[in-house]
Amino acid sequence: MERHDRVKNDRTKVGALAGGATARDGFDRRTLLRAGIFVAGIAGIGSGIAQAAESIGADAPEWMKAPGRSFSTYGVPSKWQEKVQRAIAFPPGRPGTGSSRTPLHLLEGTITPNGLHFERHHNGVPDIDPSRHELVIHGLVKRPLAFSVETIMRYPMESQIHFVECSGNSGSFNQPEPQQTTAGGLNGLLSCSEWTGVRLATLLGEAEVTREAKWVVAEGGDAAAMSRSVPLEKCLDDAMIALYQNGEAIRPEQGYPMRLLLPGFEGNMNVKWLRRLKVMDQPVNARDETAHYTELMPNGKARQYMFLQGVKSAIIKPSFGMNMKGPGSYEVSGLAWSGSGRISKVEVSADGGKSWAVAALTAPVLSKALTRFRLAWQWDGRPSTLMSRATDEKGEVQPTRSAWVSQYSPVQFYHFNGIQGWRIEADGTVKHVYV
Amino acid sequence: MERHDRVKNDRTKVGALAGGATARDGFDRRTLLRAGIFVAGIAGIGSGIAQAAESIGADAPEWMKAPGRSFSTYGVPSKWQEKVQRAIAFPPGRPGTGSSRTPLHLLEGTITPNGLHFERHHNGVPDIDPSRHELVIHGLVKRPLAFSVETIMRYPMESQIHFVECSGNSGSFNQPEPQQTTAGGLNGLLSCSEWTGVRLATLLGEAEVTREAKWVVAEGGDAAAMSRSVPLEKCLDDAMIALYQNGEAIRPEQGYPMRLLLPGFEGNMNVKWLRRLKVMDQPVNARDETAHYTELMPNGKARQYMFLQGVKSAIIKPSFGMNMKGPGSYEVSGLAWSGSGRISKVEVSADGGKSWAVAALTAPVLSKALTRFRLAWQWDGRPSTLMSRATDEKGEVQPTRSAWVSQYSPVQFYHFNGIQGWRIEADGTVKHVYV
Repeated sequence: MERHDRVKNDRTKVGALAGGATARDGFDRRTLLRAGIFVAGIAGIGSGIAQAAESIGADAPEWMKAPGRSFSTYGVPSKWQEKVQRAIAFPPGRPGTGSSRTPLHLLEGTITPNGLHFERHHNGVPDIDPSRHELVIHGLVKRPLAFSVETIMRYPMESQIHFVECSGNSGSFNQPEPQQTTAGGLNGLLSCSEWTGVRLATLLGEAEVTREAKWVVAEGGDAAAMSRSVPLEKCLDDAMIALYQNGEAIRPEQGYPMRLLLPGFEGNMNVKWLRRLKVMDQPVNARDETAHYTELMPNGKARQYMFLQGVKSAIIKPSFGMNMKGPGSYEVSGLAWSGSGRISKVEVSADGGKSWAVAALTAPVLSKALTRFRLAWQWDGRPSTLMSRATDEKGEVQPTRSAWVSQYSPVQFYHFNGIQGWRIEADGTVKHVYV
Repeated sequence: MERHDRVKNDRTKVGALAGGATARDGFDRRTLLRAGIFVAGIAGIGSGIAQAAESIGADAPEWMKAPGRSFSTYGVPSKWQEKVQRAIAFPPGRPGTGSSRTPLHLLEGTITPNGLHFERHHNGVPDIDPSRHELVIHGLVKRPLAFSVETIMRYPMESQIHFVECSGNSGSFNQPEPQQTTAGGLNGLLSCSEWTGVRLATLLGEAEVTREAKWVVAEGGDAAAMSRSVPLEKCLDDAMIALYQNGEAIRPEQGYPMRLLLPGFEGNMNVKWLRRLKVMDQPVNARDETAHYTELMPNGKARQYMFLQGVKSAIIKPSFGMNMKGPGSYEVSGLAWSGSGRISKVEVSADGGKSWAVAALTAPVLSKALTRFRLAWQWDGRPSTLMSRATDEKGEVQPTRSAWVSQYSPVQFYHFNGIQGWRIEADGTVKHVYV
């Protein structure tokens, strides 16, 4: 049986294949033409490809020697994946107030499985009996109405794939030193699902808002009665009363039996366990739009009612906690998103921002949804700094961290969307660095 | 507090709004322009919208009076949804051989949550240690290779949303009488996920298939060593070694740590727990391509190697087990799919096929993926027969059941894709009928 020295062979082959297309920064620009393009003899990438095949059949593994387990009514992940969990953080003694993060660094693609959607609760997850839950629309309407879950289910529905991001996501980037933690630890207050429900405009049409109407105050049915003011314009645009998440009834942590979905707006406004919508002529100045979720400026004043999540990206692979196994071919991949629409471009740099290569975006690129970008990278084994920079269809470009920081008070941490960086050391370890 | 007689009011209003646009079959063709269009004062649809709002606030439900439960590392559905399960069927004494069905009638949108993806096993679900699993490529290749999971993870990946359908799905339609069961019971060997993995072409490129190569035999690492022959052409096209399903590692029931994904081909060929790929110059005539998964013709001969799942659709709402609550406005919605590409059109009939209306398709309409169609329907309370008919981008049209049945032996049940029907009785019950 032959053992190939694949790493050596493949490096030779990559040079031959690239034929000048691999630039000095290591990005093979030919692979940018189309994600998943077939390249015969693409760079072999490691020592795992070492064993000749014919010896395998003789010795079947033990799991082929006895029948496997039977069927299940509702499946769970493999026991070998038990570390793929949400990371929970809440203040001592307040088990219902805090957050848990999606482990982005352990996931792939763009859809977040429902069990791993990030959580942010202000007084725990209520256990709502759907047969007793009602959504009330009142205030500046001609007909105040209460909708049972069953009634809402009868309206025409729609499905949309959208991200939800807490406005406090990536908040640690306001710290003087970069936090040494995973991509999920830094950016995991971010998830993406196929949401199905009824356009809020449809239900507001039933109640008939009056001429004075300008805002809608959404109130949750949790013990915090979490409330936020939403511009009427958004409520009549793409706002949805979401009843389903990735096909099944929305999860308790996401607002069962229904939540408000405001595509592209900060997560906190997507009120869960939605109970009441009061139509008003002004915002209500609720606790979570005055004491929190504002933008504190250097002069001590705060900007209120900043709703849109900015254009943003993060490299997920490689990232802190992963190890590069020597020089060779690697895929650099990550996520990009914008509250304003579609991602139009993601650029990646391996030299700390001196030069940039355009990454491939996985189709379909959807508005206000996570977009996966990918790029083949030939690492030469020298220290390198990887960065990504997203641009959305409105032409907005992700700012540098320093440009972002300079806008605000040092304690401001909401709405961070600056460029992020990972330092690859010569030994293959990955460190979080500010760039 | 006023109680509106909404049902009566709304019926009047619908008439006024429709202004002639609602045809005699009850389909409002104006709503076909765009799914989710805002229609001020859309038909109110039931007695649930009855309560004036101002009385609600005084009496908060008990779940708002105490903190809710804390965070969880991996979430589960609401306890109120415990009936949303896969329906399991296996022969007595053979708990590892059979299937479980996705409860399509209880789901919405197009993505199937991982816990509810249908199962089809031939000797149970193996518990594979990913650190010991290898994928071997051998046979007519220049370099037989074994790939560890870790090695495959280093190759460039791609994500695609695709359905997987068992070729035995909807097999009961070959019976003389329509089975009175749910839409999921009839059609639930069908699920749709975002799959992420490595193109098989990339790995075959590493091994370098020889000139004689025409087929690839895929073998699973289960106790059945389930094997199927796949044309090399498909393996070099859109075939994928799938490692992730809706963002997380593929579930054990779906092939953890990896499965073959052959978009649009019958489910059985998408070999799970993929262990070996043997490149050959002919198919292997494995048990599951001779004794099963063939098409038995009236003359007693069987067509082998029929891979493509045909163009197909099913109305999910309403369907057997649901009850129409009196005349009024309803949404008719369902799923359409084709193994050959995108769905281009779904037509719906409420009069047993005499007239057809074009349904709205939820964007994005993706190739070889489930597509949700929706249509507003004004039910006049008289018995009606609902049917759907899908057309794909290749121009293939879903056949009638009788046209499908007449092609085959009466015991043939694989690859049913005929038009399906639901009878709405005057009392609102829904019955399965052949159309």
